[in-house]
This record gives sequence, structure tokens and C-alpha cells, in this order.
Amino acid sequence: MGATVCDAVAGDPDLELVAAVDPKATGEVHGITISPSIEALFDADAQVAVDFTEAVAARENLRWLSEQGIHAVVGTTGMTQEDFDEIADWFGDGRANCVLAPNFAIGAVLMMKFAAEAARWFETAEIIELHHDQKIDAPSGTAMRTAQLMAEARQADGAGEWAADPTTKVVADGARGGVAGGIHVHAVRMRGMFAHQEVILGTTGQTLILRHDTFGRDCYMPGVLLAVKQVANRPGLTVGLEKLLD
Amino acid sequence: MGATVCDAVAGDPDLELVAAVDPKATGEVHGITISPSIEALFDADAQVAVDFTEAVAARENLRWLSEQGIHAVVGTTGMTQEDFDEIADWFGDGRANCVLAPNFAIGAVLMMKFAAEAARWFETAEIIELHHDQKIDAPSGTAMRTAQLMAEARQADGAGEWAADPTTKVVADGARGGVAGGIHVHAVRMRGMFAHQEVILGTTGQTLILRHDTFGRDCYMPGVLLAVKQVANRPGLTVGLEKLLD
Amino acid sequence: MGATVCDAVAGDPDLELVAAVDPKATGEVHGITISPSIEALFDADAQVAVDFTEAVAARENLRWLSEQGIHAVVGTTGMTQEDFDEIADWFGDGRANCVLAPNFAIGAVLMMKFAAEAARWFETAEIIELHHDQKIDAPSGTAMRTAQLMAEARQADGAGEWAADPTTKVVADGARGGVAGGIHVHAVRMRGMFAHQEVILGTTGQTLILRHDTFGRDCYMPGVLLAVKQVANRPGLTVGLEKLLD
Amino acid sequence: MGATVCDAVAGDPDLELVAAVDPKATGEVHGITISPSIEALFDADAQVAVDFTEAVAARENLRWLSEQGIHAVVGTTGMTQEDFDEIADWFGDGRANCVLAPNFAIGAVLMMKFAAEAARWFETAEIIELHHDQKIDAPSGTAMRTAQLMAEARQADGAGEWAADPTTKVVADGARGGVAGGIHVHAVRMRGMFAHQEVILGTTGQTLILRHDTFGRDCYMPGVLLAVKQVANRPGLTVGLEKLLD
Repeated sequence: MGATVCDAVAGDPDLELVAAVDPKATGEVHGITISPSIEALFDADAQVAVDFTEAVAARENLRWLSEQGIHAVVGTTGMTQEDFDEIADWFGDGRANCVLAPNFAIGAVLMMKFAAEAARWFETAEIIELHHDQKIDAPSGTAMRTAQLMAEARQADGAGEWAADPTTKVVADGARGGVAGGIHVHAVRMRGMFAHQEVILGTTGQTLILRHDTFGRDCYMPGVLLAVKQVANRPGLTVGLEKLLD
Repeated sequence: MGATVCDAVAGDPDLELVAAVDPKATGEVHGITISPSIEALFDADAQVAVDFTEAVAARENLRWLSEQGIHAVVGTTGMTQEDFDEIADWFGDGRANCVLAPNFAIGAVLMMKFAAEAARWFETAEIIELHHDQKIDAPSGTAMRTAQLMAEARQADGAGEWAADPTTKVVADGARGGVAGGIHVHAVRMRGMFAHQEVILGTTGQTLILRHDTFGRDCYMPGVLLAVKQVANRPGLTVGLEKLLD
Repeated sequence: MGATVCDAVAGDPDLELVAAVDPKATGEVHGITISPSIEALFDADAQVAVDFTEAVAARENLRWLSEQGIHAVVGTTGMTQEDFDEIADWFGDGRANCVLAPNFAIGAVLMMKFAAEAARWFETAEIIELHHDQKIDAPSGTAMRTAQLMAEARQADGAGEWAADPTTKVVADGARGGVAGGIHVHAVRMRGMFAHQEVILGTTGQTLILRHDTFGRDCYMPGVLLAVKQVANRPGLTVGLEKLLD
Repeated sequence: MGATVCDAVAGDPDLELVAAVDPKATGEVHGITISPSIEALFDADAQVAVDFTEAVAARENLRWLSEQGIHAVVGTTGMTQEDFDEIADWFGDGRANCVLAPNFAIGAVLMMKFAAEAARWFETAEIIELHHDQKIDAPSGTAMRTAQLMAEARQADGAGEWAADPTTKVVADGARGGVAGGIHVHAVRMRGMFAHQEVILGTTGQTLILRHDTFGRDCYMPGVLLAVKQVANRPGLTVGLEKLLD
């Protein structure tokens, strides 16, 4: 992922790649020597750091970045509310800001936003997510999160319950999928695919489909670049790419 | 369409069908005698009238409804800005309101809204509309309107031009579709289908698809019922179903 | 369904509607008086009869038709192998033929045929069927039949087992769908839809999707008309529309 | 492409990678030293050679391979009928065989086969192909070839003309796409996508969709491996992957 981020930053006319840090790698990337130590960011006078490490390393990095006054864009998953509170604290004094998002795929974030917004106008909705056949959990975190957001939006809008499931005779167990937030969620595992999700909403005489397809890990780059460009103007800690899309 | 509206109103627990007007029909609908004259609305003490006639008849009806203090929900197409001004005038004194929409398919309106909102985040976008093989114009009015809304939104957001069309070698004339608002629009005519539209937006590593499928003319009913319920609280003339969706 | 068949026959330049039978209806259809008795077929010198009644009535009708030397096209479901044997017997003496199919939707039959033919070339395959939200059984009979045909074809081709399901962590019970013939089958129930099915097959770097959409009960008519035109040249009993597609 | 083929061969339990040839590369691949000269195939006692070079180089390679008695699998495009005749000649004496295909994506080949087979049963058909926004020609060769195969199949089946295009009012020039073999073909160019094609066929009340999606150049590997395994049993020159799918 580090290499993909370096390619994206180096390829953006508004940005400059000034440092690259990886404890396990050596060599050069776009003419920049890869450094084993995060101190390289300070030496290179970096304004923004992008962190796609694991939660433990990310916390340590974020503390250091906040102390150095370097803005941070973080794609690490697996953080807790306690982590968020601590990070908000570190980035609370105005020296540097932090944008943290579990999903930097801009299309996925828009799909979730639209699905929540549309939920109140339809009596039925189901989610189909499709992933490559190496994925071990089902449904995907994005599908579960989408269902939750739709359920919350529908409740907030006072739209009442979804139409009842008509199924009274199940011929093959599990055929109607899993249920999350009152929404049936179906997980397909298919060789050849990457990550795809379709939200289907139906009312009288019509359906609305919101579908996000990804074709490679570079799908996160538009969201990362957006965050890199905006983080200086987003005081403190911002959680979720959707906050940057208004 | 009149019969479909009567079915929808009669089937809604919050509404009551009190009159039905059709100069060319006779008989009963849901226990209501079909009247040849619009006066029947007055006699039945109707609170809201739904008009799906042609532009000329609709104008006459709307004037009369505004005079009688009966709210109007109008699905007529083909009206001009001059018509709108006049109608706004008629419904300007607070006795009755009017909701007028060229498209009452709630899913289509949401698709257009989301497409405009998403436009700024993608470098490429194209529209595919698919209709039954009796439709004589191409692309559809909805596709042209969607392209226009996306172009306007993108300009308003300062998102710059769409990525240039890469095509330098056209093997079959017209293959890249028509262009509206800088967006390539493709029209498919297919036996068996009703009315369908897909907006595809693409950026690095991902695509977002917004698709609306209709399966019959009852697709307009959720929008019509929504307007019937809201018109009393929407002073004056409201143009476009999207105004009722916030 | 009777009315739909009459419309289809009357609308075909190669066919003539000569009789219409319905014990519960009266009046006319395309200038033909609806008769309560099947004898009307004899009186009208019908060459082919189309039967979309229930299994019990259909058996009685078929016996009579075979005795009168009138070819039969039958869309009735719910028949047993015993029924088939008996019907084959009745239509075994060359006076009349019978084409009987559980599904006259020509696109569905082709989808199943192609899915079976493609199965051997892909390591993974899943089925998604989507129906209106009044359907009480899940998955649909067509989906179950498709899975069975694909499993049989794969076995006959010596293609071995499908790739193993990678799912080791199920977050919402049933998310991976039901399983039939080793294939995961997902059933969506959606307001606004009719009957739709998608077979997805995947191998390295690619997927193949076979999708059938129906938009009304007239979807059976192309298959019925085909059978009506071919039945005279199909000696004895023919079961399954696919037999007529070669 | 060479590296992708080496990965695929090395990863197949039934095959062994014994040589790799690339005049411009050095180093190793899967433990095999990359050689600048095709003679390496002889030295390594290769049974089958896979060639994804350009037409000129391929011709030279094929002549040499036929002389050495090494079977050839060739993915090169841009060859003429004259080339084919010559190659057939070289591989005509039984010492070695050659399988040559313009498209090794097994799903694309099946899509074309099914589209041709289905064509006679539908009155309308259109093709939508979608590719990344670097592709300079439109429509794609696969789309043009599909349309041609469908037109030929329909003619061979005596199915008559497609239903006439209903469009009498074109609002944006080119909206109805290009026309090939009487079929409207639409080309979408979209950032993020790879190569995708959808064939839509419609008749009364229903549509059938055949869709092929590719997600990377490894999509050709199942077809290449199939050819590598079959070439020894396919005497002479075989053109087209479809020949191996029966």
C-alpha cells in the first residue's frame, strides 16, 4: 500500500513526495530514498504524513507526528473509541490535524451516504456484496456498516419498519441471506472479482440500485489525496472520509 | 394513468378517494362514479386534485382549482416558463397550493440528485438509458436532464472539465454515443423493457453506478402520493418532486 | 393467463385464434366467444390447444385432446413422472402430439442451458434470484433447477469440485446464502420487481454473468407460440422448452 | 504478459515451467533463467511454447517451433489469412501443432458463443462494451466480432431481420450508438474499469443479458493453460479458443 500511495502522491501535480518510510524496505521510490525511520519525515520537512500501518504502529506514529506539527492522514483500521479520544487529544492544540478513515474508497463512501438518504423512500432494501474468493469473513464490514447507516437514517426520518419478509417457505437454508439492521445482506465469493457492493431499494413499480465496484487497491488513492489536500484546513481529528465530501 | 392514480389513492390508508373526473370515461372506480366534469371535485369537497392531463387542459384545470381553493398535484409535461409564472400567480394568494413535476418516479429523482452530487468526485461519467422499442426519441428526456444537472453541479463545485474522450479511432459511427453537458449518453431500445437508466461514474480503481429501473406506470404512484400528502404544507407553486425529498 | 395467450395467438400473423375456453368466464376475446366447455375446440376445428390450467384439469383436458387428435401445448406445473408416463401414452399413437414445459420463458431456458454449458470452465459460481415481495418460497424453483443442471453438467464433464467456500467467519447468519448442487444461491425479495435471475461464474481475472429479467407474464408468450408452431412436428410427448431450441 | 504466463504455468500442478525467453529482459522467473534466445526452448526440451509477441516476431518463432517439433500456443493479434495459411503449412506434417487465438479470455469466448446461439430467439439485441479511458478505438474488436457472429448466426438460422430501430427523433447525435451486423453497439470509456462487455437480447416481456467482466490481464491465463494442455491433441493449426471448448 505504501508504494501505491507514493505513486499517487508523486503523480499529483499539486503534491510533492518528499519522504518514504518503511522499516522493512530499502531502495528508492520516485527518486526518494526509503528510510527505515519516521524521523525522515521531519528531516524532509514533510507537511503531511500518510499512514497505512497497523493500529499499534499507527498510534505511536500519530503521537510523534502531532508533536512535530506534521498533519496526518490515516487509513488504519482496528482502532477503538479510546484510541480516537487519545488521538483527538494529541491533535487538539492546533499544531497539526489528523484525518482518519476506515475506508478511503470515495465511491463506497458515497454509496453508503446515498443509501442512507434513500432508505426512507422505499419499503424494501437488500444488500449484495461480492468479493474475491479469498475473503474469509461474510458479510463485509462495508455491507454491515451500510445496513446500519440505512437503519439509523430510516429511524431518524421516522419512516417506520421495512416491509415484512414474505418468505414462508425456505427451500435451501440461508437463501434469504443474513440480516443486519432489518436489511437482508447477501455475500457472494467469486474468483476473479475484487470488492463490489450493490444496494437495491424497491418501492411500487421501480427499484433504485447503488453499486460500487473496485478494481484494485489504487481505489483508495482519490480519497487519500483528497484528505492530504484538505487536512491542513480540518482542525483537530476528523473521522470518516464522508466529512470531507460536503 | 387516471385509473392507476385512483387505485393508489384508494389503497392508501391515509387518503380517501372522493371524486374521479374523465370527460371520455363512464362507470365507477372504487365505488366512485366517474364524472365528465371537473365540478365533481367541488361537489365532493375534494382537498387535493391530481391532474395527469395534457398541458392545455391542465392549465384550464389549474386556474379553476386555484379559484376553488383545491390543492393541485400535476404530472403534466410540456409546460413553458410562462405557464409556470401564470400558475405561480394563481396559487399565490394562499388559498391553495400546487406541486408540479415532470417526473414523479421517486427513484429517478433520487438518481439524478445523487448523480449531480457525485459528479465532482469522478473524472469520467457516462449515462446509459434503456427503453422499450416503441420509444421514438433518443436519448430520453430524463437522460438529457441528468447530464445537464451533472454538468451544472460539476461547474458549481469548481471541479473542472471531465477527462477527455480517449477515442481517436471510431470503427462504427456513433459508437461513443451522443454528448450532453460533456457527458456521453447511450440509448438502448429493447423489446421487453420499460424504462431504465444507469449513470456510471469512474475514478482511479473504482466506479459508482446509480441505476433506476421502472417496471410499470405505477412507478409514479409513490411520488404522487407523497405530493398529495405534502401539498397543503407547500405554499404557492412547487416545481419538481426533488423539492419534497429533503 | 388465458387472455394473455389469446392476445399472443391473435397477434401472430402465422396463427389464427379459433376458440377460447374458460368455465368461469363469459364474453368475447378477439371476436371469439369464450366457451365454458372444451368441446368448443372440436367445434372450431382447432389444430392446437394451449392449456395453462391446474394439474388435475390439465390431465383430463389432455386425455380428451389426444382422443380428438388435437395437439396440446401445456404450461401446467405440479405434474409427476406418473402423469408424464400417462400423457406420453395418450399421445403415443401418432394422432396428436404434446409439448409440456414447466417454464415457457425462452430467456430463462437459455440462461439455464448456457449456465450448465459454462459450468465446467469456472472454479466458482453463485446464483442470485430476485423476485417481487409477494413470493413466499425461496429460492425460486428456477434457481434450484439451474443449480442442479449446473452441478450435473459439471459432473458429466468431469470438471471436479467447485472451489471451496473461503468463508470461515460468518458475521450474520445466512449471509452466504443457501446451497444447492454445491452452488450458493441467494434470494432477494424486492417491491417493484417481477422475476429476475443472475448466474455469476468466476475464474482467474474474469467473471461471466448470465441474467434473465422478466417484466410481465407475457414473457411466456414467445415460448408458447414457438411450441404451438412446432408441436405438429414433435411426435409424442416433449417435456421442456429446451428441446425445441436446438 | 510473459511474466503473467510464467506465473500461470508455474502455478499449475499439471505443468512445468522449463524455459523463459525475452530478448529484452534478464534475471530469473520461478527459478528459471530468462534467456534472450528462443533456442533455450530446445535446450530445455520444452514440449509447448507460449508466444505473446507481435505478429512479425511470432511468425518467425512459429516457423522455428514447427521445425523443432515444439507445439505452439499463440496469442498474437494482427495476423492475416495469408499468415494463417503459412502457419497451417508449417504445422501440417504432424511433428507439432499450433493453437492460435485472438482472444484467450474464456469468458469472452463463451459470451460470444452464447450470444450467437441466442440471437435467433430475440427480436432486438444491442451490445454495450465498457473499457478503461486509455482505449483509443471504439467499439472494441470483441464487440464488433460479437455483432458479426450474432448476425451470421441469425442469418444461418433463417431468423429474419432484427426489429427496426424505432428512433425517429435523435436529440443528441450518436445516441443510438454505432451499428454492426444490424446491431447497435455502444462504447463506454470509464476511468477505473478494465474490459467489460454486455450483450442484451430482448423479446416479449423479457430480456437476456450475457456479460463478461475482466479484472486484469491474468484473465487470459485459464484459456492459455487450456490450450497448453490440449495442443498436443489438436493436429495442425487450430484458430480460436472456441474450438477447444466443445
